[in-house]
Amino acid sequence: MGTNETTTRTFDGTGVVPLAGVGTVIWYDPGAELELGEPPEAEDVDPSAERERFADARDSARTELERERDQIAERVGEEEAAVFDAHLQFVDDPQITDGVEDAIDDGFPAEHAVERAFEEPIERFEGMDGMMAERADDLRDVRDRLLRLLTGGDRVDLAALPEGSVLLADRLTPSDTAQLDPERVAGFATAEGGRTSHAAIFARSLGIPAVVGVGDDLRSIDAEASVLVDGTEGTVVVDPDEEQRERAAEGRAVEIREDAVTTADGEPVEVAANVGTLAELDGAVRQGADGIGLFRTEFLFLDREAPPDEDEQLEVYAEALDAFPDGRVVVRTLDIGGDKPIPYLDLPEEENPFLGERGIRRSLGPDRDLFETQLRALLRAGAVGEGTLSVMFPMIATVPELEAALDRVDAVADDLESEGVAYEKPELGLMIETPSAAFLAGELAERVDFLSIGTNDLTQYVMAADRQNDRDSVAGLHDPCEPGVLRAIERTVEAGHAGDAWVGMCGEMAGDPDLTALLVGLGLDELSLSAVTIPEVKATVAELETDDAEALADRATEATTRTTVSELVADTDTDT
Amino acid sequence: MGTNETTTRTFDGTGVVPLAGVGTVIWYDPGAELELGEPPEAEDVDPSAERERFADARDSARTELERERDQIAERVGEEEAAVFDAHLQFVDDPQITDGVEDAIDDGFPAEHAVERAFEEPIERFEGMDGMMAERADDLRDVRDRLLRLLTGGDRVDLAALPEGSVLLADRLTPSDTAQLDPERVAGFATAEGGRTSHAAIFARSLGIPAVVGVGDDLRSIDAEASVLVDGTEGTVVVDPDEEQRERAAEGRAVEIREDAVTTADGEPVEVAANVGTLAELDGAVRQGADGIGLFRTEFLFLDREAPPDEDEQLEVYAEALDAFPDGRVVVRTLDIGGDKPIPYLDLPEEENPFLGERGIRRSLGPDRDLFETQLRALLRAGAVGEGTLSVMFPMIATVPELEAALDRVDAVADDLESEGVAYEKPELGLMIETPSAAFLAGELAERVDFLSIGTNDLTQYVMAADRQNDRDSVAGLHDPCEPGVLRAIERTVEAGHAGDAWVGMCGEMAGDPDLTALLVGLGLDELSLSAVTIPEVKATVAELETDDAEALADRATEATTRTTVSELVADTDTDT
Repeated sequence: MGTNETTTRTFDGTGVVPLAGVGTVIWYDPGAELELGEPPEAEDVDPSAERERFADARDSARTELERERDQIAERVGEEEAAVFDAHLQFVDDPQITDGVEDAIDDGFPAEHAVERAFEEPIERFEGMDGMMAERADDLRDVRDRLLRLLTGGDRVDLAALPEGSVLLADRLTPSDTAQLDPERVAGFATAEGGRTSHAAIFARSLGIPAVVGVGDDLRSIDAEASVLVDGTEGTVVVDPDEEQRERAAEGRAVEIREDAVTTADGEPVEVAANVGTLAELDGAVRQGADGIGLFRTEFLFLDREAPPDEDEQLEVYAEALDAFPDGRVVVRTLDIGGDKPIPYLDLPEEENPFLGERGIRRSLGPDRDLFETQLRALLRAGAVGEGTLSVMFPMIATVPELEAALDRVDAVADDLESEGVAYEKPELGLMIETPSAAFLAGELAERVDFLSIGTNDLTQYVMAADRQNDRDSVAGLHDPCEPGVLRAIERTVEAGHAGDAWVGMCGEMAGDPDLTALLVGLGLDELSLSAVTIPEVKATVAELETDDAEALADRATEATTRTTVSELVADTDTDT
Repeated sequence: MGTNETTTRTFDGTGVVPLAGVGTVIWYDPGAELELGEPPEAEDVDPSAERERFADARDSARTELERERDQIAERVGEEEAAVFDAHLQFVDDPQITDGVEDAIDDGFPAEHAVERAFEEPIERFEGMDGMMAERADDLRDVRDRLLRLLTGGDRVDLAALPEGSVLLADRLTPSDTAQLDPERVAGFATAEGGRTSHAAIFARSLGIPAVVGVGDDLRSIDAEASVLVDGTEGTVVVDPDEEQRERAAEGRAVEIREDAVTTADGEPVEVAANVGTLAELDGAVRQGADGIGLFRTEFLFLDREAPPDEDEQLEVYAEALDAFPDGRVVVRTLDIGGDKPIPYLDLPEEENPFLGERGIRRSLGPDRDLFETQLRALLRAGAVGEGTLSVMFPMIATVPELEAALDRVDAVADDLESEGVAYEKPELGLMIETPSAAFLAGELAERVDFLSIGTNDLTQYVMAADRQNDRDSVAGLHDPCEPGVLRAIERTVEAGHAGDAWVGMCGEMAGDPDLTALLVGLGLDELSLSAVTIPEVKATVAELETDDAEALADRATEATTRTTVSELVADTDTDT
């Protein structure tokens, strides 16, 4: 080995954004600043002064959290910003604040009291699974914030990192990730975390190259090292070679295609964006989306005391339509259930909220007035906005449910007609999320213009595996490449086409470029995904031969195991 | 109308046991005895004496509850007895006992203190849905027990009702129902309650004619009236006419057929019993079951501090096999998950336990040692007991899961072989409960001897509707006659037969005689149900023409709505 050669080291993790970046390592270890020494003697502590310090710290924490929430709502989305509401609640949780004040009364300074009072609840949540375990992270985040405010510790200003930094950390909290500036940060990598962690979700929305779950080995990378974060390969490379640097430089440079694409042999495939806030419309346009394949409307209803009225909604829908004057915007009607807190809705506590009163079940039931207002706003927007409006219903499981929803659209149109208000009937469709809908896809398709497969929920129900459950035996089953799910998709596309409807897909599966060939082979007419991946999926479509894709799909739907499906998909990748 | 004529009045409710009985009304209104007057002045109350009275009442409540729990475990089943554990917990719930003691300290006598302290938690649970709402009933049950013990009120001795009584009540608690003696009670009817209430479940297990959910009109029936409780029709008839009395007298007298039955044109259909405890074996034999189609093993594991060892299990399985020397006993391996509390298992708290780590997922994961012990006991029992042993796995969703389970059976057989212990390899199969398993039924069937469709869970997953959620929009979807579910069953039977396996059904659908023709038409080889309904289902099978049944099944699987399916089923009923 010559002295001029550097040794390239590669660490494997989970890539969460298909982007790559090279930069200089900055280690972020907020816990280190927060080591409290031994507490002073109790007689040296003035409880009333400490209570006041604690009250001040809580005030500052609230101010910070509200600011960060607004920032995330703006930059990422209302739904993602909801995590800060949980933090705000913890700041005012009586059990915790009582615990802190009791410890202060026992003679501890405020910071030691905070450390003690959070210990038990954090441990309790750590012992649980899935979403409950994430609560432990939230509590740590709140605790560390209070400690920093109490000890006067400066926070590393993540918003002002030097340009070309690569941030490494054990974990990044939602607040941490929210501050990162995609213009300055070349990427980040964390030892912990998975594809669905807040850090991962925020990174995708912000368009920052990111690899999570690298494990403890990550700590062996020194500050100031030069590293490549490759979110496509899921690797962190120390001292990348010239070729790797060049590829990274191209990382953001998959050609953006503004025009619609076809396969190499000329079959058109619509590539649209999933969008959850108005703020994301710009990115969708910039990345070359043909339209919006899933416009979630929950953001309009979250984080407020009363639902938005018809005019407010009209404005939002019209703005979305104006963003795609030549495209289609598929709006999903309100999809909410017992797992989301909305103060003005009578949302039941349910043992299994994912099997409960969600989506259309609420819109035809307790939320029927809300549904009517939303439909009125949508039909009016169709007459005002430039693009083509499509409306789809979530969680349909039976034909009568669909017919009831369609009847509501007709009734709203009649009302607007008789009121002399301008409106336009949209294209109509439904999400295929329940296995029942897949079994009835033909009869459902005959009644609408299109079907859109929501693979996240469909997979969850077909496999009977909660997508937020992280027990190995459950998380391992939540994969849309499971043969059971592929066959449900196959059946849906065939029956949907036979029923004269176009069939799209708007679940996470649609955003994985490795699966594009399989999906095109299954016959999907449209794929809707996070804006950031659109250039890559469009590029993949353009290179496909339909015959090859169909042959792959045939083999995959005959496969008996997910492993076989993965191998088939990988083989095809190598072929092309 | 002549003076000798009596006026027959009929009340509609939900029949929960297909039995009928005629008797004399006794009204049961435990609340009435418990009206407490105004509390005395606070200065007339001695808090320490009242605290002692409260402590004594709790002691007595514990003793009663433990006795009743054992009684139900013996007569109904361990799983059903678990409700008393919940009651025992409430007796010692610190929030409630603190509340009572605070109210005593405020100057209330113990009984008024109890009434006050339960008020808030009962209201809280009443505001929730599904299983949480049932908790309100449990709390009321515990409160009324304490009040009765404190006021010295005698409990109506439900175990010693006069022979030929028909009990009417607003609601019956689990404790109430548990005491009823099927030899003395001709039936019961309640104003409240549904098919899955504890009263309904206990009535089925005890074989008592019962109609629930009649509504407030029930109260218009006078004590001492002569009434017919018809659990097949779901009606309560006051002053039934002679013909109705005669039919009621036949109510229990559907001919018991000890031999296997065939359809009228000679197609054999096995009719077996679902059994959850050893105590139920007798009833299954008496009602003419051909064997056991579902032997649940959870009762062996509930309500104890450590799991049963191999020898204890061996004895139980051998006893089940001996009960059916010429029949088949299908044992389901442990099917447990996060919705059941078992102290010695590491059961996670899950957001959606029905989509979590259940059944085979646990047996191949955290409970693998337990699974091995159970398989060893089963294989040894096969060599000891008289009947034919079959073993099936719950919650299979993928082919690799099934293969892993089958590998475990082989490994256990190898171990026993090399240890020189006598064993016999059982017939092997799996439950079809997940939609994924229905989509993979062919590949799964090729690897085993049989499939058994669990319609309760399959319906829940196909429809994405929790079977314990009682919101209208969700409960209304949980029906195995939904076309989506019928098509999943159709696919399973066809693929199962093509894969050379026999296909049975052990969910509640199999126990509805109105659906027997449909199920035989779909091609099911075996139906397994509550023992009490076996004579009726065997009688129905014996009258069927296979061609008619198949024509019905063809029409039903093509139907678009559940209503159409119901009409098709009803038409066929009228035809025959």
